[in-house]
Amino acid sequence: MDSFYEKTLQTKTLYEGKVIQVDIEEVALPNGKTSTRELVRHPGAVAVIVYTDEDKLVLVEQYRKALEKTLIEIPAGKMEKGEAPLHTAERELVEETGYTADALEYIGSFYTSPGFADECVYLYEAQGVVKGEQNLDEDEFVNVIEVTLEEAEVLMAKEKIHDAKTCYAVQYLKMKQMQHRLT
Amino acid sequence: MDSFYEKTLQTKTLYEGKVIQVDIEEVALPNGKTSTRELVRHPGAVAVIVYTDEDKLVLVEQYRKALEKTLIEIPAGKMEKGEAPLHTAERELVEETGYTADALEYIGSFYTSPGFADECVYLYEAQGVVKGEQNLDEDEFVNVIEVTLEEAEVLMAKEKIHDAKTCYAVQYLKMKQMQHRLT
Repeated sequence: MDSFYEKTLQTKTLYEGKVIQVDIEEVALPNGKTSTRELVRHPGAVAVIVYTDEDKLVLVEQYRKALEKTLIEIPAGKMEKGEAPLHTAERELVEETGYTADALEYIGSFYTSPGFADECVYLYEAQGVVKGEQNLDEDEFVNVIEVTLEEAEVLMAKEKIHDAKTCYAVQYLKMKQMQHRLT
Repeated sequence: MDSFYEKTLQTKTLYEGKVIQVDIEEVALPNGKTSTRELVRHPGAVAVIVYTDEDKLVLVEQYRKALEKTLIEIPAGKMEKGEAPLHTAERELVEETGYTADALEYIGSFYTSPGFADECVYLYEAQGVVKGEQNLDEDEFVNVIEVTLEEAEVLMAKEKIHDAKTCYAVQYLKMKQMQHRLT
């Protein structure tokens, strides 16, 4: 069903930053009228679920300027130009948490805000993880914390865990646990 | 832990649109250096999980210009200025799907992209729904479709369902189903 296709009549790039690009597009609607679409271009991001042999979920705590508060999230980062998601995942995991993994299993992806942005988050689950030293960029400030799944659910209820990818990850692990109990 | 607080030194609003506002902020980092944050301001959105007595999930199919493709999503919409999330939820539900509900139960919220945007999605689950007529804006093009939870999982695997709020909703219903089997 692409009968609702909106043809681009004109594109104006308002901003090209380090992270986002902002385009304003004039489009033709299916009824022949025109409308304006405000679009944010983003290179995409990866996020990694690390659940250790000690039943701990590895999370990072960092200040989010857009929200003016600190959130606790699964390790993640944006893709560099031309970088494969798996490589971003490996890189961000060791940089932010110090953990390395035998393998990163792809478990799915989602668009964060299809109404205005093209950002896609690719999710991986780390297998066979080994703890190491954080290796942050000079201007990156990230605390690593490790919690049980039950503690993660409490953090979600308290809205300290409060972003799409981490809520999804907590649900994912919870479902795995329930599946295990059902089989 | 707000020791990683980033003080705003300067804000420049690049764009004020109908949906988003784009701010570029110069911030002081915890190490005394300065950096730039590219921030998208969004009024927030609500989304409604409608699961009927006939075990069907009510979804809407629409063209997403940011992605240049059609996605299948749970009904949702952005909040008008000063509008309470519950009111947005009631309004969008009937406009997009024609369904009305006896009650909308709040089940949680999440930030979609905390790295660059302040958009928060508030999720509701509809109770006691009754089918009615869609009441779209003149320039809104939305197909209503109803699928079983199993069909929704297939749509997710095929990436026709591919946005954060709908993936979360499918997981939420799946978990409820598993919980029911466990008790």
